[in-house]
Amino acid sequence: MDPDNLSVVLHAKGDLRLEQRPIPEPGPDEVLLQMHSVGICGSDVHYWVHGRIGDFVLKEPMVLGHEASGRVVRVGTGVTHLKPVFYHFLPLKGDRVAIEPGVPREMDEFFKSGHYNLSPSIFFCATPPDNGNLCRYYIHKASFCYRLPDNVTYEEGALIEPLSVGIHACRRAGITLGSLVLICGAGPIGLVSLLVAKAMGASQVVISDLSADRLAKAKELGADILLPVKREDLPEEMAKRVESMLGGMPHVSIECTGVESSIQTAIYATRSGGVVVLVGLGASMTTVPLLNAAVREVDIRGVFRYCNTWPTAIAMLASKRVNVKPLVTHRFPLEQAVQAFETTRQGLGVKVMLKCDKNDQNP
Amino acid sequence: MDPDNLSVVLHAKGDLRLEQRPIPEPGPDEVLLQMHSVGICGSDVHYWVHGRIGDFVLKEPMVLGHEASGRVVRVGTGVTHLKPVFYHFLPLKGDRVAIEPGVPREMDEFFKSGHYNLSPSIFFCATPPDNGNLCRYYIHKASFCYRLPDNVTYEEGALIEPLSVGIHACRRAGITLGSLVLICGAGPIGLVSLLVAKAMGASQVVISDLSADRLAKAKELGADILLPVKREDLPEEMAKRVESMLGGMPHVSIECTGVESSIQTAIYATRSGGVVVLVGLGASMTTVPLLNAAVREVDIRGVFRYCNTWPTAIAMLASKRVNVKPLVTHRFPLEQAVQAFETTRQGLGVKVMLKCDKNDQNP
Amino acid sequence: MDPDNLSVVLHAKGDLRLEQRPIPEPGPDEVLLQMHSVGICGSDVHYWVHGRIGDFVLKEPMVLGHEASGRVVRVGTGVTHLKPVFYHFLPLKGDRVAIEPGVPREMDEFFKSGHYNLSPSIFFCATPPDNGNLCRYYIHKASFCYRLPDNVTYEEGALIEPLSVGIHACRRAGITLGSLVLICGAGPIGLVSLLVAKAMGASQVVISDLSADRLAKAKELGADILLPVKREDLPEEMAKRVESMLGGMPHVSIECTGVESSIQTAIYATRSGGVVVLVGLGASMTTVPLLNAAVREVDIRGVFRYCNTWPTAIAMLASKRVNVKPLVTHRFPLEQAVQAFETTRQGLGVKVMLKCDKNDQNP
Amino acid sequence: MDPDNLSVVLHAKGDLRLEQRPIPEPGPDEVLLQMHSVGICGSDVHYWVHGRIGDFVLKEPMVLGHEASGRVVRVGTGVTHLKPVFYHFLPLKGDRVAIEPGVPREMDEFFKSGHYNLSPSIFFCATPPDNGNLCRYYIHKASFCYRLPDNVTYEEGALIEPLSVGIHACRRAGITLGSLVLICGAGPIGLVSLLVAKAMGASQVVISDLSADRLAKAKELGADILLPVKREDLPEEMAKRVESMLGGMPHVSIECTGVESSIQTAIYATRSGGVVVLVGLGASMTTVPLLNAAVREVDIRGVFRYCNTWPTAIAMLASKRVNVKPLVTHRFPLEQAVQAFETTRQGLGVKVMLKCDKNDQNP
Repeated sequence: MDPDNLSVVLHAKGDLRLEQRPIPEPGPDEVLLQMHSVGICGSDVHYWVHGRIGDFVLKEPMVLGHEASGRVVRVGTGVTHLKPVFYHFLPLKGDRVAIEPGVPREMDEFFKSGHYNLSPSIFFCATPPDNGNLCRYYIHKASFCYRLPDNVTYEEGALIEPLSVGIHACRRAGITLGSLVLICGAGPIGLVSLLVAKAMGASQVVISDLSADRLAKAKELGADILLPVKREDLPEEMAKRVESMLGGMPHVSIECTGVESSIQTAIYATRSGGVVVLVGLGASMTTVPLLNAAVREVDIRGVFRYCNTWPTAIAMLASKRVNVKPLVTHRFPLEQAVQAFETTRQGLGVKVMLKCDKNDQNP
Repeated sequence: MDPDNLSVVLHAKGDLRLEQRPIPEPGPDEVLLQMHSVGICGSDVHYWVHGRIGDFVLKEPMVLGHEASGRVVRVGTGVTHLKPVFYHFLPLKGDRVAIEPGVPREMDEFFKSGHYNLSPSIFFCATPPDNGNLCRYYIHKASFCYRLPDNVTYEEGALIEPLSVGIHACRRAGITLGSLVLICGAGPIGLVSLLVAKAMGASQVVISDLSADRLAKAKELGADILLPVKREDLPEEMAKRVESMLGGMPHVSIECTGVESSIQTAIYATRSGGVVVLVGLGASMTTVPLLNAAVREVDIRGVFRYCNTWPTAIAMLASKRVNVKPLVTHRFPLEQAVQAFETTRQGLGVKVMLKCDKNDQNP
Repeated sequence: MDPDNLSVVLHAKGDLRLEQRPIPEPGPDEVLLQMHSVGICGSDVHYWVHGRIGDFVLKEPMVLGHEASGRVVRVGTGVTHLKPVFYHFLPLKGDRVAIEPGVPREMDEFFKSGHYNLSPSIFFCATPPDNGNLCRYYIHKASFCYRLPDNVTYEEGALIEPLSVGIHACRRAGITLGSLVLICGAGPIGLVSLLVAKAMGASQVVISDLSADRLAKAKELGADILLPVKREDLPEEMAKRVESMLGGMPHVSIECTGVESSIQTAIYATRSGGVVVLVGLGASMTTVPLLNAAVREVDIRGVFRYCNTWPTAIAMLASKRVNVKPLVTHRFPLEQAVQAFETTRQGLGVKVMLKCDKNDQNP
Repeated sequence: MDPDNLSVVLHAKGDLRLEQRPIPEPGPDEVLLQMHSVGICGSDVHYWVHGRIGDFVLKEPMVLGHEASGRVVRVGTGVTHLKPVFYHFLPLKGDRVAIEPGVPREMDEFFKSGHYNLSPSIFFCATPPDNGNLCRYYIHKASFCYRLPDNVTYEEGALIEPLSVGIHACRRAGITLGSLVLICGAGPIGLVSLLVAKAMGASQVVISDLSADRLAKAKELGADILLPVKREDLPEEMAKRVESMLGGMPHVSIECTGVESSIQTAIYATRSGGVVVLVGLGASMTTVPLLNAAVREVDIRGVFRYCNTWPTAIAMLASKRVNVKPLVTHRFPLEQAVQAFETTRQGLGVKVMLKCDKNDQNP
């Protein structure tokens, strides 16, 4: 095995380095993965620029990256459901897998009841102090690596991570057959929410954004109605426009901006008995028309990452029911990680993909 | 208004007549409809052939038909949401509507809690002693008539009734993103369940039938996998074949045949924690592997008609998310109703449509 | 029948009058009721003092009262499930009933799906412009009058209305076996929520209030832990006290004050994955730690009145599983309605009951 | 530590032996427990008498017992939430714990989604080939041992296991405020279901049994209505009697006998839209009125053991909301295990408790 384990390490706010790290050995329930494709997330860039997100503060060097896929190279002694590249000296292909970056550490009440994303002690790639997988070789718990079918690419596998945010948001929203949906914000998360909402049966999705480019991308991905917004738009007026455009108030609003006025719009816009899902993260205190929501029984639900989404996502990708490929707008070899991060920081395109395998830079 | 109200009346078992009936006057909360398209359902034919279905026995002449759409001609004094063909002497177009045939008569516990289909005193078109709408003019409660958008045809409007059975079945099944689904039986109800399951996000649907023709139609409508069955197939073996074909046990099985061995197959096949929905009606007593279902927490749920499906169906049809048009294989003018019934009785095609408007026999 | 129909009529803000009104005739689906016991609600007093609540503005004289029970005197021609005092010239007792004050006027999407409380055109007693039932004789839709068993008193029947707010709130909260519950505010709604939470299986309920007297009443009604609060208490600190008192964060918080700091406490206090239910109504805009709620998936749900609660409440009262009798602290004959309103306005006691039947002023 | 580890070992059908076994060492995530109280379950006796239950066949000697509580003696290196009897040479009390006997071995789809009871590879005490805890010393996964508060006895702790079956059944049934409930069978599982149903808000519970003694015990535990049955009773007639006794059809029926006629009664008896929960295990094929259930949308749901019940049960026991103490009718020291098993085999009393701690045979 090539000893090269080039890794993208954030040493401190603004101090992103490419450096060699030793290749680790998998424990009994772990696998060693040769990384193939890793997407850059806004949170990766946020750590780079700010050194922290909320209470999560970078205190020691940390490998970035958590939207990832790779090939199984070695398996721990207790791993049975994944195949490595060598097995009893016989060469195998090694399973291609997508990596779920959050792995609960304790069998606590949250894990036992199916909400492991809420487990306070969860391991999560590239959330301090846990290392991510923007590197050549990486170990992960085998039970949180999911085999990719032959007709799903590595990049699709890596995109399951952002797609999972959309799946979890749409599940929490209760989107179903015939739902009218408002999505606030056409960034990567708004776009995956759009894809998932349509796949779950939404009949009409209106999506809003400040940027005409983003809205054009949303159109390409299947948005039914585009709603260009301006910073000075008034929430109650925007809500009326949404109702008028959809021919009825949306059953569900998925707020992906975190901006206060947009949250207000989402609340005013949503039909009585409906749901506002908060995906975008904003300020710690927010002023909202809670009374309006309460007396119309519009539920306000947040999402924290996701749980139980990888098998669903793989099923949808394998059956070609969801197409995430157009999300990838840029690709860089791992060696050019800083340039790739800079591209994301500037808000260019939708999703920047880093290619970690020197010998295979295909999608 | 043309006084012709040719109606398809079942006088007794085997005694189907075309006869004139007076045009009724709508009450305050009713509308008078000029019927356009009415599909023939297996239950219509069953009443014709057997004079009864279970405890529902034909005792006096009854107009058949309950899969219907038409145009609003007159509205009762309390009706505000629908427009008739004349209004204060001004000619209007008259709203085109789809008709939900079940109308609860009492505000009982079932209606108040959103399950009006279970209300024991419900009015239901063409279920004795309630008349159906296979005629030229028909009155119905305005609140159970739903305006069709311009881009939804009358025949699509009439097909909302069978589609609703599929919607209700798939809702009861809890089909969602990534569901693996087994549908037993590729008759009209199996086919609408297929359409709805896909629209709700099912990733793979396998559908079984004795008939190769029906399976071919299922393929045309989007079935992922076809499973030809023979009467002598053993349920446990069929269950294994389903698992093998899907690459995993289905989360949901929708049983549309009512045949005992098929119900058994559905139970054995369904994944632990999954759901079997019983749509097909069989014998009053059934022998099933209840223990197998119980210890794997496979829920068994029936469906009785539907509730709250028309607005959903219209949203799906208007947004072109579901295509029911291929279901119509035969059309007859109302005057040829007996021939049309005979066609359905012989099991030819999928859906036979009767055209009630002499001046407009378009879809 | 005694022609006396003394009625409590609000003519304008501050102008409450006792006056005679004609005894109405029931329509086909209505009943005429001889009123027995009517509780005074904070909203009745609010209309008296302010002439409005939010968008509901008193524009013409309106009878107050909506927490009510009485005896069926006459029934409309279509009423079958209730018995009047005379029937074919035979004297009957006349059914004793509790009155659900909200009656949907239209069979709209909300009513059909079991959420008739959200129907925008709903009739509601003593919400302008709809008259209430603080009078001697009153007509109501028969299907929203519920027969009281012999072992449930008229006053218990009248208290079903506030109890329903608690039932709806606890249902929306998803309280179940073993729930730890925080209730903010020990006024009438906090107290009924307490009763219901315990009856639904909550293992520990902590209840907060500014007033020691109210907390003492809560203790009498079954509160496990009392939390005296002061206006200057900081929400995050209060949340920690709640966790410490309960030995864990509450699964559910029911906010009954509408005060901003109390809503903030409820959010901070609630366990990840839990629910905050907003019952108390506050200002139209509220500043809350929405981010904290969102990233811990603490859902925020409002309640608007209730639906489908009367049969449940009657079952609980008849089986003695809930005891609402201690809520009644004052009684006045109908003739002393103004004094009774003044008592409620001053915040004395918990529930003031008006006795409308001159010949039976028993509970 | 006393090296005595007397254990109740089933060697083969009918061959139950008391023998010494070595005291095991806990692994990193395990604890060593000194057993205190272990109840005898019908399944323990079934293995003794028949050597198997369904597909679970005794092939090598197995320690029996799975309704258990004890004291933590030693903890593995990774255990932080439980305290042993010695810690850094300082004597501690050692946490008193209740033991959840089912521990998932794999983080599979069932575990991740909160249904670990359905995980096919789960470890389960005293289900072949997994050893139970009817012995002096036993090791278990620490995360499936739950600390008992001081006011909950060891025997209450051991009774959490059968109570959990009741909790899981009542949760699956959706019992809530005001539910009318039929429980078929007043054996231990019927009785715990009764306790839980009442605690979850059921307003009326009718319980049936062949035995007057069992019904008397049910009365003592809070049953509202007793329904003595005879083998020759007809299911449809029994269903009518249930409706008549309750003043309405039950929303929920919990079938705890596994007898075909009783399952039939449960289906006929249950209200449209209600739920039949199958707890009792019967023959592999059952003949039932599935059509009746289907057209009335009466769901049929099985239960397999339980999940996520221990914390709930402890909360209910600690708050004295559920009283399981009357279930214990017999106690034997561990040395008299065979006599204890014989007592259970003869159907005497309700729950037989074995006392495993030589120095503390208190409840």
